[in-house]
Amino acid sequence: EEILRGATTDIYFVRSYELLHHMGLGGTPVVAEIFARRGGVFAGIQDVKRLLADKNGVKMWSLDEGEEFESREVIIRVEGPYDQFGLFETVILGCLASPSGWATAARECKQAAGDSAVFCFGARHLHPAVAPVMERAAIIGGFDGASCILAAKLAGGEPVGTVPHAVILIMGDTVEVANVYDKVMPADAPRVVLVDTFHDEAEEALRVAEALGDRLAGVRLDTPGERGGVTTDLVFEVRNRLDQKGFGHVNIMVSGGLNPERIIELKAAGASAFGVGSYITAAPPIDMTMDLKVINGLPVAKRGRIPGITDNPKLKRQI
Amino acid sequence: EEILRGATTDIYFVRSYELLHHMGLGGTPVVAEIFARRGGVFAGIQDVKRLLADKNGVKMWSLDEGEEFESREVIIRVEGPYDQFGLFETVILGCLASPSGWATAARECKQAAGDSAVFCFGARHLHPAVAPVMERAAIIGGFDGASCILAAKLAGGEPVGTVPHAVILIMGDTVEVANVYDKVMPADAPRVVLVDTFHDEAEEALRVAEALGDRLAGVRLDTPGERGGVTTDLVFEVRNRLDQKGFGHVNIMVSGGLNPERIIELKAAGASAFGVGSYITAAPPIDMTMDLKVINGLPVAKRGRIPGITDNPKLKRQI
Amino acid sequence: EEILRGATTDIYFVRSYELLHHMGLGGTPVVAEIFARRGGVFAGIQDVKRLLADKNGVKMWSLDEGEEFESREVIIRVEGPYDQFGLFETVILGCLASPSGWATAARECKQAAGDSAVFCFGARHLHPAVAPVMERAAIIGGFDGASCILAAKLAGGEPVGTVPHAVILIMGDTVEVANVYDKVMPADAPRVVLVDTFHDEAEEALRVAEALGDRLAGVRLDTPGERGGVTTDLVFEVRNRLDQKGFGHVNIMVSGGLNPERIIELKAAGASAFGVGSYITAAPPIDMTMDLKVINGLPVAKRGRIPGITDNPKLKRQI
Amino acid sequence: EEILRGATTDIYFVRSYELLHHMGLGGTPVVAEIFARRGGVFAGIQDVKRLLADKNGVKMWSLDEGEEFESREVIIRVEGPYDQFGLFETVILGCLASPSGWATAARECKQAAGDSAVFCFGARHLHPAVAPVMERAAIIGGFDGASCILAAKLAGGEPVGTVPHAVILIMGDTVEVANVYDKVMPADAPRVVLVDTFHDEAEEALRVAEALGDRLAGVRLDTPGERGGVTTDLVFEVRNRLDQKGFGHVNIMVSGGLNPERIIELKAAGASAFGVGSYITAAPPIDMTMDLKVINGLPVAKRGRIPGITDNPKLKRQI
Amino acid sequence: EEILRGATTDIYFVRSYELLHHMGLGGTPVVAEIFARRGGVFAGIQDVKRLLADKNGVKMWSLDEGEEFESREVIIRVEGPYDQFGLFETVILGCLASPSGWATAARECKQAAGDSAVFCFGARHLHPAVAPVMERAAIIGGFDGASCILAAKLAGGEPVGTVPHAVILIMGDTVEVANVYDKVMPADAPRVVLVDTFHDEAEEALRVAEALGDRLAGVRLDTPGERGGVTTDLVFEVRNRLDQKGFGHVNIMVSGGLNPERIIELKAAGASAFGVGSYITAAPPIDMTMDLKVINGLPVAKRGRIPGITDNPKLKRQI
Amino acid sequence: EEILRGATTDIYFVRSYELLHHMGLGGTPVVAEIFARRGGVFAGIQDVKRLLADKNGVKMWSLDEGEEFESREVIIRVEGPYDQFGLFETVILGCLASPSGWATAARECKQAAGDSAVFCFGARHLHPAVAPVMERAAIIGGFDGASCILAAKLAGGEPVGTVPHAVILIMGDTVEVANVYDKVMPADAPRVVLVDTFHDEAEEALRVAEALGDRLAGVRLDTPGERGGVTTDLVFEVRNRLDQKGFGHVNIMVSGGLNPERIIELKAAGASAFGVGSYITAAPPIDMTMDLKVINGLPVAKRGRIPGITDNPKLKRQI
Repeated sequence: EEILRGATTDIYFVRSYELLHHMGLGGTPVVAEIFARRGGVFAGIQDVKRLLADKNGVKMWSLDEGEEFESREVIIRVEGPYDQFGLFETVILGCLASPSGWATAARECKQAAGDSAVFCFGARHLHPAVAPVMERAAIIGGFDGASCILAAKLAGGEPVGTVPHAVILIMGDTVEVANVYDKVMPADAPRVVLVDTFHDEAEEALRVAEALGDRLAGVRLDTPGERGGVTTDLVFEVRNRLDQKGFGHVNIMVSGGLNPERIIELKAAGASAFGVGSYITAAPPIDMTMDLKVINGLPVAKRGRIPGITDNPKLKRQI
Repeated sequence: EEILRGATTDIYFVRSYELLHHMGLGGTPVVAEIFARRGGVFAGIQDVKRLLADKNGVKMWSLDEGEEFESREVIIRVEGPYDQFGLFETVILGCLASPSGWATAARECKQAAGDSAVFCFGARHLHPAVAPVMERAAIIGGFDGASCILAAKLAGGEPVGTVPHAVILIMGDTVEVANVYDKVMPADAPRVVLVDTFHDEAEEALRVAEALGDRLAGVRLDTPGERGGVTTDLVFEVRNRLDQKGFGHVNIMVSGGLNPERIIELKAAGASAFGVGSYITAAPPIDMTMDLKVINGLPVAKRGRIPGITDNPKLKRQI
Repeated sequence: EEILRGATTDIYFVRSYELLHHMGLGGTPVVAEIFARRGGVFAGIQDVKRLLADKNGVKMWSLDEGEEFESREVIIRVEGPYDQFGLFETVILGCLASPSGWATAARECKQAAGDSAVFCFGARHLHPAVAPVMERAAIIGGFDGASCILAAKLAGGEPVGTVPHAVILIMGDTVEVANVYDKVMPADAPRVVLVDTFHDEAEEALRVAEALGDRLAGVRLDTPGERGGVTTDLVFEVRNRLDQKGFGHVNIMVSGGLNPERIIELKAAGASAFGVGSYITAAPPIDMTMDLKVINGLPVAKRGRIPGITDNPKLKRQI
Repeated sequence: EEILRGATTDIYFVRSYELLHHMGLGGTPVVAEIFARRGGVFAGIQDVKRLLADKNGVKMWSLDEGEEFESREVIIRVEGPYDQFGLFETVILGCLASPSGWATAARECKQAAGDSAVFCFGARHLHPAVAPVMERAAIIGGFDGASCILAAKLAGGEPVGTVPHAVILIMGDTVEVANVYDKVMPADAPRVVLVDTFHDEAEEALRVAEALGDRLAGVRLDTPGERGGVTTDLVFEVRNRLDQKGFGHVNIMVSGGLNPERIIELKAAGASAFGVGSYITAAPPIDMTMDLKVINGLPVAKRGRIPGITDNPKLKRQI
Repeated sequence: EEILRGATTDIYFVRSYELLHHMGLGGTPVVAEIFARRGGVFAGIQDVKRLLADKNGVKMWSLDEGEEFESREVIIRVEGPYDQFGLFETVILGCLASPSGWATAARECKQAAGDSAVFCFGARHLHPAVAPVMERAAIIGGFDGASCILAAKLAGGEPVGTVPHAVILIMGDTVEVANVYDKVMPADAPRVVLVDTFHDEAEEALRVAEALGDRLAGVRLDTPGERGGVTTDLVFEVRNRLDQKGFGHVNIMVSGGLNPERIIELKAAGASAFGVGSYITAAPPIDMTMDLKVINGLPVAKRGRIPGITDNPKLKRQI
Repeated sequence: EEILRGATTDIYFVRSYELLHHMGLGGTPVVAEIFARRGGVFAGIQDVKRLLADKNGVKMWSLDEGEEFESREVIIRVEGPYDQFGLFETVILGCLASPSGWATAARECKQAAGDSAVFCFGARHLHPAVAPVMERAAIIGGFDGASCILAAKLAGGEPVGTVPHAVILIMGDTVEVANVYDKVMPADAPRVVLVDTFHDEAEEALRVAEALGDRLAGVRLDTPGERGGVTTDLVFEVRNRLDQKGFGHVNIMVSGGLNPERIIELKAAGASAFGVGSYITAAPPIDMTMDLKVINGLPVAKRGRIPGITDNPKLKRQI
């Protein structure tokens, strides 16, 4: 909350505030508009609303979260005395840029996956202060679940996950882990087991399937690059070997360097759940720009911009 | 702090904890090592130290912040009972991945700028919860200052900044803003004025220089793309026109889409301070991987990794 | 005229003439055909006609000026005693190669501009001896006007133009120039004013429009590369700022490095007149080749060519 | 001459003249400088000198013809009352742009050819009004001869040439032409014979060499593209076959689509004279720009240019 | 035959045989399948049939020669005791890989040539032990004839050919050779004469056509690269010159570096027979893989392959 | 032998023979030279020698096998009556083209491998009639061994090999195969075992090493593409895991899609023996050309070639 209130705000804007008040212009009525340099999926408005909700005389319109926008389309309009929100320009733009970048990348993955489930495995690439913000944005973009407990709460669902390599290494055998996991977990939690820790994946998938039988929901392939990564051939073979032994009900979940193209290929080869990490977390922020377009009721703009309000019927009143 | 304690941690690791404790293996002594998928500048260890400082029996070695590392070099080693730190794998990696990515990009810019000052203008692209983390990483990478008040505090300096376009638009004239700014600011704060709001930059730079004379420290060019952006030709001309009128003491600060290559060109053309934004903020995180390498004193590793400790004389004891 | 008579002719052909007369073969009846190495728009036949009009026994067929031809299509056929026109091979080909190259480039620009006006501003790139020939070829290609007085006369129209930067620099202010220009020029000459000499173009365009009001026909943007050149963003903004202030009747003329692609973009952004220079003048000549195809009534050809006449129904009798 | 006086001049400059005189500013003392957009070899100043020689109060400095210049280097400076030379801006620039482009391309070819002779065969691609100007520029660039009689005169030498395909076709046999040519030509003119009209070049070269013996200076290969053009293999073979039969004194001259790279290869294969056409004639003009830099003794410049004189020690007083 | 029996077989398989017999497993019943790494045209099964025809208990299914297959499609299935055919794995695969590569390349050429004749001229690039195998594969791919006598026999036809350059060089004149050839050859053998040995092809083609008249079936162009190779221009001109002189019945056969693209172009220019060499002989073998899929009646496979038989309705019983 | 005698020879040359004998020119003394279109390593002369050894009056000079040649260098010269060897032109060229192509590719691999052993595994891609010819050429190029029994005999060595996947599949366990192999093989034959049939390679390599101990010479990695192929990471890990367990004496042999670049990388990662297949077998033949250069003692050549003998001091008398 303190973060949102401006502790991180630019010194630029603090100075603006001082200068304008010195001139008695602090409360000048203005209209500001925000647009993005490239198109994408809109996310992050929640934090902006929380920030501006109690400001005097401030009105705000914006797209809904999850809506798509074009390059240069006006996505937020704020109206009110400049000193009620101008100080927060940096904070407002920051609340939108990364989440919109993440939601956009997530949308592309989800469109590739179609009716298959896509989960966000990127928390490990981002600072813990924003990992839940990122996972929430991924869910806005269409993802089916997050692994951060906090993000799952924010998005109103249950966190999802399997058991990591470390536990299997400590216990010493994948099947043993699977058995304990099966015994300990609540009956309704799906059993999904990583099968690439010690042995060849196809071999281990069959061992685990034989051990858990009908209770096994899925196996997860996260083969490291040193062993060729997760390929369509690998997925196709594991799918076939499981089917040949009567384990048609066991799903294959894949992860490791996925992107929309690879999701399409791996789905065709037999995968039915996808864990995506760096495609989301390395997506660059969508840079946003806030421009004053009306001052004291008159259209204005700095050089290079069109003065006055730019209509956008997609904008809805938020505050 | 709560963030660092694990509210955001992966559900994977929570389950690991439960399973291992069920088997009486929670306290298994292990050694874990962290390496990065590509080389860069190390940053973010402060948060990891804070997180693990009070854990029982945990020792940690790492590089120093600001040190460079190679692809696959071991940069952190943690030793201790697995249940004292394994739960935090996601959080630990997340504390390092983005900051190291940012510091690496900052180092490249600073090397391009040499003895000229480089400032971080990227706060507006990142969520306010990590903007100060990013600016601190940029300073670790070599930057000379940050615009976030919080980041400046974290890095132990003063925040830097000029007056934004909005103030100039509201007041209606750049020279008038410059005069007020000059009157209001503490005597020892450098006067730097944006000169691209209403008029051609060369024209406006001379007007401002004539108004403030010796008290003007610099002009800032942030020309929008719609007017051609900031080019070497523009910097060269403004530099020459200022010099011809006797304003050789006025520095030129540039910003807008800078990267190491453009910094080198613009410095050669006469710029002496640089504001860098998206080159830092769009730098992808440097993905980190934590592997168990020793369990109960014996070398182990999952498929694809080399069992046992990998020596690295650069590692220093941190905890 | 002397030029056309052969003072510039190749020494090769002078020797041919001597050799053939020595052998008593000077008057050998031949048919020669001319084709081009690449397709284009035909221009330059006027000079060829003037050259051959009074030669004994010479007949000529060709395309009409402005007609398009394919690579290797026969575009001229000449029949007669070799010594009546063979000497002029170099001159004939030279009359066609550059003009056809220019007309071809002009046609591409005009097709891009559609119903907008396109003017030729390339005289400054070519030797004054051919600048009018080039502007005439541009008009054959479809251009709406030329700036050379001589070319305008050749093409039967009025020369077009604005006031150059030099005058504005000498007078010291664009608005002052506009006022004098308005006072001095005949009432029916369109007032078009360059607006990039001293100030930002958008600012200056509004000042000039306010000064001349309804009498202003257009503003011309010729922004130098050092200020970003003429971009679609700039045109779009100037168009909008003029419209917002009620100057919808003021046209925008653009120039500077235009080519068909840029014309299409700039027209879409709001420009309605185009000044094209180096796209025309740097267009390479369309190399032409003249082959003897019939000698003494018999089909012949050198190695690599097909003997005899190649029919082309598009050829019309010119002499 | 009339051309140079301005019949072709831009209507822009005529209007400038009228406006300035109306304001009593026609005689304003100015300094103008000319620079080029890209580097090259300087040519064309003769025509400019002739144009400005008798103007009142006009001084001019420039590079010498044949000297090389860099992109943006000042290559001409003119000082005097604006109305004495401003009207001729288009004409002055036009006198320089194409010749400098041609001389630059010629220099590249000559550097490739080293001590071998290079001749200009491009007259057929250019309008006869400028063909001699082009050939003169090629000689300034370093060429050894021209085929236009007028250009040879301008450059103070003898025109060079062989007999064209047409004569050989009319006579019906290459050897017969060679014999007549040998009989008719002055004793001191070199005998060079085209050998690709009817038969394979190697075969014909030997027939001609046998017919003329020691009196044959060279054979010329101009093989059409339909027969593979002139290749290094062809030159190498003809050279060897001539040498094997004792015709080591017979030079090989090549032509047809030559450029610096091909000249180097063909020279290595045994060619010792080169006829270059479209590489010169399709070389784009080097666009020149004239800027007012001083008005009434004070440094000025339009936006984008540096006010005042730019020193260049290479400039020499011409008028 | 001895070759096929295994003298060349891999030492690997000899050892397999020994090991399995030592264990009493030599006669283990297995099913093996063969697939290719890339798609193509199937050839070479004749040799495999001959090899396995008399083995005890061995059954074989395969595609027919000339049939097309996809990448990874099963193209052969063998069933029987392992020691009856396992030893021959290398030999079996080798019988298929190169022929299928050749037949595939031949198919592409024939498709390009449509109803024109295509002949195989590649024997000179391959060891004589396989040259007839290659020519037979080319005929399976669709070629109209082969130049090897043995290959022609294998494919049940007559060998085709012209007279080589050497004979023409020894006799000293192409027309003389043509006359002798005409006198000596059986009346029904088509007369096709090479016309590029001494003179220009167009010239020589006409000389030969005049000499043989109606008895001349075709001329062959094999112009060396040093003379530009066989181009569409050359073919077009020779076609026209023959037609103009009334030799419309004389076909043009071309050779030299042909590939499907060039065949299409040259056919359009007038060629009606094609001699293809290195496009076939440099076609890489299509690597084949044999996998055991069933052992003792149970589905098996090594890692990376799907256990059990893969149905392919295109397979036909061969043994 | 019959093959070499000409059963496969071109019908072209049979006709030559007939024509020349008809004219009484069969025994014309000639000199022929052979050159290659691109450089490489010379191989295949043995077969040519055997073919021409007993011909009357035929002398032959050539490079030695294994010697390198340049593009267009004369590599064989044959002198004698045309009818003694002209008939065999196709056969002679065919004996050289493929072997030289294979030896050239082998040389590149061996240079990459340096002091490590390189074996030829390509027999399965080539027809059994030439597989031994290919393996012999690979040994001329520098390879250390061949798997064909016949090729090993031809090259005077022992065939090399491991046990194929099929045997392991039939026996059902790699370690069991290793044990039997160890028991059955002669004491001095090196034990090399394939370790990728059923399980992960690193796991299986350790199992086999533990079973055979000091008697294990090497493990072979031939990982299929579906499991990522053989990568530097895999080799590095297997090398380390073997070393950590005290199996430093066990070599790693790799195969599967190797080429010179991959050999260098894999050697650096720890491999010490290489099995190369398709890089050799898919190497295109080096096309050879035989030209008559002297006839009846006089220098001649067809168009495009230089008449007479071309000296090459590297040629040695072979017959």
